[in-house]
Amino acid sequence: MSKTLHHGLLILRVLSEHPQGLTVTDVAERIGVHRTVAHRLVRTLEAHQLCRRDQQRRIVLGTGLVTLAEPVEQDLRALARPVLDELAEATRATAHLLVREGTQDMRALMVVEPRGALVHVSFRPGQTHSIQQGSGGLALLAGGPPRSGERPEVTEARAKGYAVTMGEVIPAVIGVSAAVPSHRGEATTSIGVSVFEPAGLDALGGTVVEAAKRLGNLLG
Amino acid sequence: MSKTLHHGLLILRVLSEHPQGLTVTDVAERIGVHRTVAHRLVRTLEAHQLCRRDQQRRIVLGTGLVTLAEPVEQDLRALARPVLDELAEATRATAHLLVREGTQDMRALMVVEPRGALVHVSFRPGQTHSIQQGSGGLALLAGGPPRSGERPEVTEARAKGYAVTMGEVIPAVIGVSAAVPSHRGEATTSIGVSVFEPAGLDALGGTVVEAAKRLGNLLG
Repeated sequence: MSKTLHHGLLILRVLSEHPQGLTVTDVAERIGVHRTVAHRLVRTLEAHQLCRRDQQRRIVLGTGLVTLAEPVEQDLRALARPVLDELAEATRATAHLLVREGTQDMRALMVVEPRGALVHVSFRPGQTHSIQQGSGGLALLAGGPPRSGERPEVTEARAKGYAVTMGEVIPAVIGVSAAVPSHRGEATTSIGVSVFEPAGLDALGGTVVEAAKRLGNLLG
Repeated sequence: MSKTLHHGLLILRVLSEHPQGLTVTDVAERIGVHRTVAHRLVRTLEAHQLCRRDQQRRIVLGTGLVTLAEPVEQDLRALARPVLDELAEATRATAHLLVREGTQDMRALMVVEPRGALVHVSFRPGQTHSIQQGSGGLALLAGGPPRSGERPEVTEARAKGYAVTMGEVIPAVIGVSAAVPSHRGEATTSIGVSVFEPAGLDALGGTVVEAAKRLGNLLG
């Protein structure tokens, strides 16, 4: 590990948790370095447009991060976009694409909200949660062989082809997800919807499975 | 400037330009450091989920960048989303939100493609171009006082309230943009559409100006 780089990246993380901005002193305290060190790191991040000063001279994240993040999983995102759009419209629910992150976590890579729905779930892409929680993680676990002690929802998802969870990632919100079939080994991506109402989950499951198949075919 | 942090951030930039992945040797060569240094930096980036190894063991950008980028201009993006959606649907054209980056550049912060249009322009957010080119930049320049030697398009945009350019950012593509009015000083954000056809630009300009006003009011 490079300690200097680590500190610089910690600054980005701290800033992402404080969208209202921080002073150099705040930054130094939070990452545990001297103010002059923090100042030099911030200057370097600024030179890369990864942070900037706002009108109150507070340090906030810079738009250069949008450029850096854009190519991440670009092929997957480009192919998934119309599938998620269709899924959100067909179900009038928020559609999401989650990817496995390491062995323990799932990360929301894309979130598409339905147009015109009176009420829908809204959440930010980028968030991670345990693969043991939420329909997306369970859908991927169901793709593996049965394990003793696995959650009954995983066993059920293996039989049905989609996973259903209630209130595990977002309180009171029901998730319905299916693993996106992969021809390159184990599935690492799930597609699903978030809804408030437990009615019609079977039909929803069928629609989600169809969307997962369609995306799997697009990915080849 | 911190040289180590600078090198680490350069790696992210190099990786963003090579979505198919690079080896450690490639990375070392491109940023001009020894292989062992590159290896240590890559390990640090990996620990922050900012890069990962793909199935061929090549280094690619990691999904942690999506998390970092998500809060960038979050308020602006959240407020702009429905305005861009409406603009894209009303015009059946690709709508975009650009922000000023430093003194010289504009950066595409959001791009919303119209649904159901047979043909539309598609481009990736995150890209930057000179403020002297493209309708978004000219719309912002038109917000300032007249300058001798300014482009005639800027003068015209000042009179009309919106700027029109042809093929300056994307070949053959026409841009129509207006500055988003700001109550906190100089405008730094433009909203606009990209179209192929030069017909009906006046009507388009009016629609874009309305969208800019609506977003300006939302921003308060």
